Amino acid sequence: MTGSSEARGFASDNHAGAHPQVLEAIAAANRGHASAYGDDPHTAAAGELFREHFGPEAQPFLVFNGSGANVASLDALTRGYEAAICTEVAHMNVDECGAPERVAGTKLLTVAGEHGKLAPDDVTRFEARRGDEHFPQPRLVSITEATELGTVYTADEVAAIAEAAHALGMLVHVDGSRLANAAASLEVPLRAITTDAGVDVVSFGGTKNGLLFGEAVVFLRPGLGEGFEFVRKQLGQLASKMRFVAAQFEALLRDQLWLRSAAHANAMAARLAAAVTEIDGVEIVHPVQANAVFARLQRAAIDALLESWPYEHPFHVWDERDDVVRWMCAWDTAPEDVDRFAAAIAEAVAAG
Amino acid sequence: MTGSSEARGFASDNHAGAHPQVLEAIAAANRGHASAYGDDPHTAAAGELFREHFGPEAQPFLVFNGSGANVASLDALTRGYEAAICTEVAHMNVDECGAPERVAGTKLLTVAGEHGKLAPDDVTRFEARRGDEHFPQPRLVSITEATELGTVYTADEVAAIAEAAHALGMLVHVDGSRLANAAASLEVPLRAITTDAGVDVVSFGGTKNGLLFGEAVVFLRPGLGEGFEFVRKQLGQLASKMRFVAAQFEALLRDQLWLRSAAHANAMAARLAAAVTEIDGVEIVHPVQANAVFARLQRAAIDALLESWPYEHPFHVWDERDDVVRWMCAWDTAPEDVDRFAAAIAEAVAAG
Amino acid sequence: MTGSSEARGFASDNHAGAHPQVLEAIAAANRGHASAYGDDPHTAAAGELFREHFGPEAQPFLVFNGSGANVASLDALTRGYEAAICTEVAHMNVDECGAPERVAGTKLLTVAGEHGKLAPDDVTRFEARRGDEHFPQPRLVSITEATELGTVYTADEVAAIAEAAHALGMLVHVDGSRLANAAASLEVPLRAITTDAGVDVVSFGGTKNGLLFGEAVVFLRPGLGEGFEFVRKQLGQLASKMRFVAAQFEALLRDQLWLRSAAHANAMAARLAAAVTEIDGVEIVHPVQANAVFARLQRAAIDALLESWPYEHPFHVWDERDDVVRWMCAWDTAPEDVDRFAAAIAEAVAAG
Amino acid sequence: MTGSSEARGFASDNHAGAHPQVLEAIAAANRGHASAYGDDPHTAAAGELFREHFGPEAQPFLVFNGSGANVASLDALTRGYEAAICTEVAHMNVDECGAPERVAGTKLLTVAGEHGKLAPDDVTRFEARRGDEHFPQPRLVSITEATELGTVYTADEVAAIAEAAHALGMLVHVDGSRLANAAASLEVPLRAITTDAGVDVVSFGGTKNGLLFGEAVVFLRPGLGEGFEFVRKQLGQLASKMRFVAAQFEALLRDQLWLRSAAHANAMAARLAAAVTEIDGVEIVHPVQANAVFARLQRAAIDALLESWPYEHPFHVWDERDDVVRWMCAWDTAPEDVDRFAAAIAEAVAAG
Repeated sequence: MTGSSEARGFASDNHAGAHPQVLEAIAAANRGHASAYGDDPHTAAAGELFREHFGPEAQPFLVFNGSGANVASLDALTRGYEAAICTEVAHMNVDECGAPERVAGTKLLTVAGEHGKLAPDDVTRFEARRGDEHFPQPRLVSITEATELGTVYTADEVAAIAEAAHALGMLVHVDGSRLANAAASLEVPLRAITTDAGVDVVSFGGTKNGLLFGEAVVFLRPGLGEGFEFVRKQLGQLASKMRFVAAQFEALLRDQLWLRSAAHANAMAARLAAAVTEIDGVEIVHPVQANAVFARLQRAAIDALLESWPYEHPFHVWDERDDVVRWMCAWDTAPEDVDRFAAAIAEAVAAG
Repeated sequence: MTGSSEARGFASDNHAGAHPQVLEAIAAANRGHASAYGDDPHTAAAGELFREHFGPEAQPFLVFNGSGANVASLDALTRGYEAAICTEVAHMNVDECGAPERVAGTKLLTVAGEHGKLAPDDVTRFEARRGDEHFPQPRLVSITEATELGTVYTADEVAAIAEAAHALGMLVHVDGSRLANAAASLEVPLRAITTDAGVDVVSFGGTKNGLLFGEAVVFLRPGLGEGFEFVRKQLGQLASKMRFVAAQFEALLRDQLWLRSAAHANAMAARLAAAVTEIDGVEIVHPVQANAVFARLQRAAIDALLESWPYEHPFHVWDERDDVVRWMCAWDTAPEDVDRFAAAIAEAVAAG
Repeated sequence: MTGSSEARGFASDNHAGAHPQVLEAIAAANRGHASAYGDDPHTAAAGELFREHFGPEAQPFLVFNGSGANVASLDALTRGYEAAICTEVAHMNVDECGAPERVAGTKLLTVAGEHGKLAPDDVTRFEARRGDEHFPQPRLVSITEATELGTVYTADEVAAIAEAAHALGMLVHVDGSRLANAAASLEVPLRAITTDAGVDVVSFGGTKNGLLFGEAVVFLRPGLGEGFEFVRKQLGQLASKMRFVAAQFEALLRDQLWLRSAAHANAMAARLAAAVTEIDGVEIVHPVQANAVFARLQRAAIDALLESWPYEHPFHVWDERDDVVRWMCAWDTAPEDVDRFAAAIAEAVAAG
Repeated sequence: MTGSSEARGFASDNHAGAHPQVLEAIAAANRGHASAYGDDPHTAAAGELFREHFGPEAQPFLVFNGSGANVASLDALTRGYEAAICTEVAHMNVDECGAPERVAGTKLLTVAGEHGKLAPDDVTRFEARRGDEHFPQPRLVSITEATELGTVYTADEVAAIAEAAHALGMLVHVDGSRLANAAASLEVPLRAITTDAGVDVVSFGGTKNGLLFGEAVVFLRPGLGEGFEFVRKQLGQLASKMRFVAAQFEALLRDQLWLRSAAHANAMAARLAAAVTEIDGVEIVHPVQANAVFARLQRAAIDALLESWPYEHPFHVWDERDDVVRWMCAWDTAPEDVDRFAAAIAEAVAAG
């Protein structure tokens, strides 16, 4: 058992707590009675904000968590024999405990990708078995933005994938648990890398960007969200006291809180990357484009650093066989945290 | 679109907000970083409290909502061809959008029940098709405590059902989204109607008793919870920032908040029942043993009351064909709300 | 372990073997190579015969068995949150080991029915919860023709159900494992009680009417069968050496073999019913309209008859609590079998 | 639409018909009534034969097809969150239309393999994420014997995989749709590469080795088959007139018909391999160890050969991007077929 503490680590953006404005919004929403399941003013207001950010056709559905958002998206948009294409490192492939397959009944067709990114040809080459009853039929392409490896698809890259997918009658899903970080990194609005790039549905993350909990499935084309209220309910993602999910999204989407928090986390990762680039014995293995730094260092240095840092769970060893670690920054990571951590890295490497 | 307002209704205990102590607990937990997914001090502390209430063998798993708690319980305890016995009015049969069947893969074998309560013989009579490969094999008996019709099983009644179930190799699940109301009604500890009565697993409700969100699946016998961490994850019920679910349960289970809130809601229902008993034209159709009153009145009176009450969604018409309504009290229902509502009922009936 | 023998019983029409013409057709098809999975001349010829019987729009898919035909029909025509309405005694409700729910993910909404038959109002009353996200949405009405209780829906009765279903946007499925017996009983073509009565899809039975094995899912409206080749494959119902399923259906559907066999089985049931009507102590409990006789007699008589008849598994006790038995006739039941069995019944009852 | 013809091709062993002895066995079993669902003398006799071949603990369950055998095996031996390890080219990964995932709810964890064969380290390296609730837990290793690429695992290779699997608490499944070909190739009894090598369950193929249809799931360790009768039924793989599946297996397993047929098919593949080895422009890409030859030749030669051979569907192009074809021999492939086909290949290549 590890625990919470005043010290901050670099293990995950979900080790951070909630932004104070988010808690204030919940407290403000906690007055009197409100209809359950989303028939309340906060949910309506959050809906408006989603349409401001994703376009007037956007149809948002609030859910509890990212697993729920992803799995419900798959379930809604695929028939039983239809499949989804994603990279081998996609969260839905390696970190959802088989939920896409077991719960949504959707086989994942994985492709290798580079730095966590899928390319249009990864979609096109599945054309060979279209119509073959022995093979699950790809219906959805799911990309992660920002990716699990801390890289970011440009709007053009997303658009090229969407074009390849649509040409074969497939839809495009964005696992956007860190979509805010991608948009902040690219300095574009949320819709530039989703709606305007041809994306059909996005799992929009809140938890990693300062909510207590809460994500949204946002359908970006008319008709796609039809019946999704049933899917959300059946998959256990319908909050009864919905106003408290909605109030958090109101806080996040209003006055650019989402952008400030994400941009800050990104800046902290950039600061860390810049610092460790100076250290001999630390190799950055993926471009640092969002709020994560992936680095290779000697096993002894990894162990020393894990030992020395004053937070119980400082970071993840991403690849045990390859001595690659992940350092993740959050909305609440302070510059001093970064500087002290970089110093600790230097020390651990030097001692190695 | 209806909405929230200062006025309170009698539609559901989930129209009520969160208890102030619950919000305070969340704010207090919002300091620094904490490991995700339950490896934090709040989750550990909540676990201790669950063991105080349900016995030292209790193994609690926090989840988002009641649907999740019920469906994950079914999934964990039944193989693909095993079924669960419940009443026709069980929430899992009529209000989970088919999730038990579709998500857990568990067929529900329904029995009629009386006032929402199942009897031992409802279990025993399924013996006939045990071992018959054409029939799904009953493995779990699920009872709701307090029931969907506002009645309560006594500890002896639960024990008799558990005995019948165990005699046939079945387990007993309690859908306890209002377990606190049942315990408060019977004036017994939570374990008296669960652990000590032979129950194997309980979905313990928090949301309806003053949390923002949050329920718990509590396994009461050693071994039954094995592997449940995977089930919870796969079914989308694992909160990343778990400390905020746990902190709410700490507030609820410490210093008897659960009991005070539930007892209050029950008292309000009793007050309402007493008041309407005096009104000619209102027939109470189920014993009022928890926080709900079910009544039959003329359709015109129902419509007038729905119209006149100053909260947008005052109550549910439970049975449209039979003119039966449900009036539900919550932890925040005030005596004056009840008195005013009873007066409004009298007026609506008189005008009918 | 019981076994096969020259003696014939009344347990089930699937205790009978294959009609000689069916075996001859298989032998004739066993020449050289043929493309697998249905791309062969026998499958094409069988398709033509289906269209002769069910109309030019009929789209048949051959499968292994009735379970497969029913479950695949449900899977193809319902989304994850959609449900099917059927009677409590429907085969898919009580004899498919929960496959509709677990495999197709389709909750069954059961209605009581009379003599195994569902009425239009059983469909209409589900209107109340349409659009309610908490309730699985009925999409399909499934009736069994002839029913599990040996009764038959007239063409008008089927049409009335179809009208009620279509009015609410539902489709109609016929579990027709004994459709031939129903058509023979009513003396109408197969399409009169299916296509022409508004049915959308039928599971057409072959096994119980003299095949080795083999059923067909026949879609009766254009478009409904789209993608069904994938459903059939995914649910394990695609025969690789399809020509041997198809050849059997060619034999069955050509030259009225289906009708002669079914009419004979019906006539044997009528003969049995007529004989036992004369016996004091035997009460026929459902109209005898197809190839089954359901009767109530004293438990001692049931036991004596089970003991005395020279075939190991003479018949099923249908309802152990109510002393009701089922006597089923097959394409190969001889008049002498019936007469001897009636005499044995009389003897068992007299001895009781 | 292609069709059947006297000419034989090399597309698949399931383009071949049924062995005459198999049809004779069916005809012989077609006398009088027999209890349905396996409670008959033929099923009992087949069971004895399976125990002769696989050992006295073997528990066989007859099913319709290989899809059913594989998917039911997965379903029986994995919980919802458990996964199976197999190669990327495994039939269950690329040719079951997603049934393992959708129907059994089992995620497949794929490994690259060489010539279609998995190695012990492919199992061992999954140890890293055991106990991690985010990752589906591997419970089963599934190997194909003979493989989809025509290669064969030796008994020692199987044993090494089983040892690696068992060391991590996993079970071993053999997809044995061509197990007979593997045993014939190695000149060992069936049990040498299954039971005696530590395999836990095998899908034993009949269809590709001369049955009309029919496979068997054979559990090789006591206890593993518990409850499988329900799994088989629920997944639509329970034949009502089981005697006709059993009679075919009696014919196959008695007097070494299985071995003679498989050895013949293997010999034909060896003859073909020997012949084409002489042809410049044909490259054999996998060791020819069972009844298949995989070869690379120029695209123009492939097309010419497809055109010239007098059977409608002569063979499969296995890899369109790499110009690799599969030539499969069957129990009925004649030496003259092979010689004529080799000549046609030579001609097509020469013309290229």
